[in-house]
Amino acid sequence: MRNRRTDLALESHQLWQQQAGQTTQLPGVKAEDRTREGFPVTAVQVLDREGARALDKEMGTYLTLTLDGLERREEDSFFRAVRAVAAELSTLLPPPVENSPVLVVGLGNPAITPDALGPLVHRHTLVTRHLIAQMPDTFAGFGCVAGIAAGVLGTTGLESGEVVSSLCRTLHPSCVVAVDALAARSVHRLCRTVQLCDAGISPGSGVGNHRTPLNQETLGVPVIAIGVPTVVDAATLAADLLNSDQPPDLDDRGGLFVTPRDIDSQIRLLSRVIGYGIDLALHPGLSPEELELLLD
Amino acid sequence: MRNRRTDLALESHQLWQQQAGQTTQLPGVKAEDRTREGFPVTAVQVLDREGARALDKEMGTYLTLTLDGLERREEDSFFRAVRAVAAELSTLLPPPVENSPVLVVGLGNPAITPDALGPLVHRHTLVTRHLIAQMPDTFAGFGCVAGIAAGVLGTTGLESGEVVSSLCRTLHPSCVVAVDALAARSVHRLCRTVQLCDAGISPGSGVGNHRTPLNQETLGVPVIAIGVPTVVDAATLAADLLNSDQPPDLDDRGGLFVTPRDIDSQIRLLSRVIGYGIDLALHPGLSPEELELLLD
Amino acid sequence: MRNRRTDLALESHQLWQQQAGQTTQLPGVKAEDRTREGFPVTAVQVLDREGARALDKEMGTYLTLTLDGLERREEDSFFRAVRAVAAELSTLLPPPVENSPVLVVGLGNPAITPDALGPLVHRHTLVTRHLIAQMPDTFAGFGCVAGIAAGVLGTTGLESGEVVSSLCRTLHPSCVVAVDALAARSVHRLCRTVQLCDAGISPGSGVGNHRTPLNQETLGVPVIAIGVPTVVDAATLAADLLNSDQPPDLDDRGGLFVTPRDIDSQIRLLSRVIGYGIDLALHPGLSPEELELLLD
Amino acid sequence: MRNRRTDLALESHQLWQQQAGQTTQLPGVKAEDRTREGFPVTAVQVLDREGARALDKEMGTYLTLTLDGLERREEDSFFRAVRAVAAELSTLLPPPVENSPVLVVGLGNPAITPDALGPLVHRHTLVTRHLIAQMPDTFAGFGCVAGIAAGVLGTTGLESGEVVSSLCRTLHPSCVVAVDALAARSVHRLCRTVQLCDAGISPGSGVGNHRTPLNQETLGVPVIAIGVPTVVDAATLAADLLNSDQPPDLDDRGGLFVTPRDIDSQIRLLSRVIGYGIDLALHPGLSPEELELLLD
Repeated sequence: MRNRRTDLALESHQLWQQQAGQTTQLPGVKAEDRTREGFPVTAVQVLDREGARALDKEMGTYLTLTLDGLERREEDSFFRAVRAVAAELSTLLPPPVENSPVLVVGLGNPAITPDALGPLVHRHTLVTRHLIAQMPDTFAGFGCVAGIAAGVLGTTGLESGEVVSSLCRTLHPSCVVAVDALAARSVHRLCRTVQLCDAGISPGSGVGNHRTPLNQETLGVPVIAIGVPTVVDAATLAADLLNSDQPPDLDDRGGLFVTPRDIDSQIRLLSRVIGYGIDLALHPGLSPEELELLLD
Repeated sequence: MRNRRTDLALESHQLWQQQAGQTTQLPGVKAEDRTREGFPVTAVQVLDREGARALDKEMGTYLTLTLDGLERREEDSFFRAVRAVAAELSTLLPPPVENSPVLVVGLGNPAITPDALGPLVHRHTLVTRHLIAQMPDTFAGFGCVAGIAAGVLGTTGLESGEVVSSLCRTLHPSCVVAVDALAARSVHRLCRTVQLCDAGISPGSGVGNHRTPLNQETLGVPVIAIGVPTVVDAATLAADLLNSDQPPDLDDRGGLFVTPRDIDSQIRLLSRVIGYGIDLALHPGLSPEELELLLD
Repeated sequence: MRNRRTDLALESHQLWQQQAGQTTQLPGVKAEDRTREGFPVTAVQVLDREGARALDKEMGTYLTLTLDGLERREEDSFFRAVRAVAAELSTLLPPPVENSPVLVVGLGNPAITPDALGPLVHRHTLVTRHLIAQMPDTFAGFGCVAGIAAGVLGTTGLESGEVVSSLCRTLHPSCVVAVDALAARSVHRLCRTVQLCDAGISPGSGVGNHRTPLNQETLGVPVIAIGVPTVVDAATLAADLLNSDQPPDLDDRGGLFVTPRDIDSQIRLLSRVIGYGIDLALHPGLSPEELELLLD
Repeated sequence: MRNRRTDLALESHQLWQQQAGQTTQLPGVKAEDRTREGFPVTAVQVLDREGARALDKEMGTYLTLTLDGLERREEDSFFRAVRAVAAELSTLLPPPVENSPVLVVGLGNPAITPDALGPLVHRHTLVTRHLIAQMPDTFAGFGCVAGIAAGVLGTTGLESGEVVSSLCRTLHPSCVVAVDALAARSVHRLCRTVQLCDAGISPGSGVGNHRTPLNQETLGVPVIAIGVPTVVDAATLAADLLNSDQPPDLDDRGGLFVTPRDIDSQIRLLSRVIGYGIDLALHPGLSPEELELLLD
């Protein structure tokens, strides 16, 4: 399984079941299905170390939202998806703390299309910390939100984790919401699935290459991670096609990725869905339509 | 072979040889290897209809330049690559015609990274037609060049071929140089190979979806095509891995592509190499270093 | 008056009245005020050559829409502005001609912010010509629309007029809608005023530097021009401040412009208003909200 | 003088002299002219509080480099300008401290063209901190550099000063080099002048709106500021034209700016000059030409 790379707890779980060749319950893991705003949701809970080891995922709750129909821009799918992200996120967020902002962090490299999800979500984050400080009465109904695009090691010389933990020591946020692009195993999940979890972001995830995890332990505050698989590692696809545990060596370069043809417009669409979803969860007084006009 | 899609004559030829299981010469096709500025060049000539049918390529000369070392930005590799593109292009260009511009056309969709090669090369094209008209003495040493990014059907409602043929009827260029992103069969060729040919661009090529060919027949003037493979169709990769003629149905969407992780910076680099190479071939009085400072 | 540059017929008319020092009617010119969707509209009609000479504007109807409140993003101002542009445009458009597209042309340089209005409107144009050709029944309710960003002389070596007239000879559109950035005399009009006219675009207009006019005479079809003033020439502002007919020589460079601090976001907002307004006028079956979700 | 806004010590000094109507030396201020790489340099030293009050500038050394000829891209002007910035910066930089990075900070809003200088310089900063940590031998000849674009209050909810001081507490840099767009009084200085100073960046400077200064006092380390005037406040221009101390109220909006027509390409060019200049000062083993190929 190690050679079939995925950042989705749902896929790890499915792969385990497939390899176990049975429907028995994996000890330490609980999974259940429901729907939200018409979209399927699977909640995988990694309850203990045994479950964490079996799935190669940290302990915590992983919510997977499948946004079928969104990419075809079915008429109400956009605002339904925004509301679904907001509602699922709300189940994971700790209660707000007065005078403490929520810090929304966009991870990833804006110059690499499938890795640009986080920086683009940052653009759609409605930050209010400065407005509440200046005009507390006018912004009484808003949550206190700050946001940053953390940059990548290659262009800053700083790990995302260093940037975020420096800010946390100064800002004392009530929680961090970190958004990043992920890697999936199945091409069918690309740009169609949103995973929300309360376990933070583990090292080596996604398209990028973070080494320090962002989680309660490293940052001292709860860390909610939101991710979308935007690539399948080409070697993972090949190993799956060949039904082999040994991915073939396809290329001598840093890596080849499989992405949808229209990845650029998919990333733009998903960054609005997730950005507005975060905004809606953090500023419950707003409607998605108002956000659409406020931010562009 | 139909199921293993490639726009490179070199790969079609290699595939034929591989399937023929021998080293016999394919009738109607001549191939030879040489070097230019230290880079390997393979010239494949499709001499007659039999050769054209065997390789599924129009009759003409296909020059393939392999730019190893460029992506590692080895120090002199950039200007060597520019000079190599210019020199190979010069062997295909018809002689200049007085008062007739060369029309350099960038094909493809600037909003889809691996399809943006043509529009980016357009930005690096040193156009002079208006300057020569205004200040003929000052620009006496320059070739007469016009350029356009032809747009794509989905955003213009016009086929690239319609746009270019309309302009040709007005401008009477001495030739058209058309630049486009291509599809390869081998991941090893991605962003490392430049194909130059005098056969125009055939329908269905590349990442995009042109239906009308751009060639001497449709435009009334010689058409030199320059292309770089930027994607491998995921189904082609799968068929190759499975050694099957029947590519598996990987996804129900428009298509999945395999690209290098750093496709964004590769495309920017290659568009400068090809843009400056075209400039150097059309304005032989300039040095690559001067172009680097003139254009950015 | 020559030294106080404006592309707005409304301003030319006001300047004439101001200089005439009276309220007498200018012969050959008729002006009247009304409102549309709550926004003020002034219609200036240049009726004959005398009026054209007095205002330095071609004969025709010039509608000026003042979009106060839009920049503050008052809640319904966006869709009201879209509907107002659509309604005013509809009064100028000739009746549709079967099998003849309307050609929407974005003029200007995308690399110069205040000149990028036209290219950005092009991105928001819902083109259908190819869809109607492929699926006539599905798109029965849509107008037939094609669109292009014509580029600028400095990057194509081609005048916008050459590109558009070449296409007109091939496509035989029923009319051309040309969008461009304009120069105003008053800073109060910057990014707040939309001028629509049926007189085409005259040479020397706007931020850019077109020399061939786009009008019925040069293109053979009706030309509706839509423009927004995005700059005031700094010399014009200086002449106004000094109340002098002789603008001071402020700088030895190509020119200095006065723009609003937030010109980048103003241009993005206005390009959506005008783009969706054009779409709504050409595809009356759509609502502005549907356009907002279809295009991004 | 308060109504004639400038961020350039040179202009403050000239204005004082002009108003003093004489050539007497201003107490507490010392100014001298020299050249560097063929470009004029003026060094203004604000020596004490009296001088600081007279010029409304913090105490320190202000070096002003006038880059005439650069915008016309005279052949050797680009690399001469890079070397001149590097040489002047070197006179202000404190000696390197082992295991302590220099932190290069890009200030300003990337979405507002004349304010985008800082974020663009960040892209041209050659960061090495992570490389030195990973491969100390390979990068033995390089300075230790980290870099960040600090974002703006409106999109992060965080003052630039908060972001930078948080990082300084974690990274303990040997110094901060902060790059920002400035406001000038004279249109002739726009995009032609580089000011380098060791006094940090004062609140209210430039196009943006920082409130916390970045200086030795707030950050605990030396702060070198590099700025280029990219706008003249339209009210300042008007006050100068009218020779009035009371700038006229030109517009009811946030502000109007005077900029060169080609501000977009000027900003791109200057960000490369300053970025490579910083790189050259911090990594003395590199040549400007190597930087040009390394970074793009």
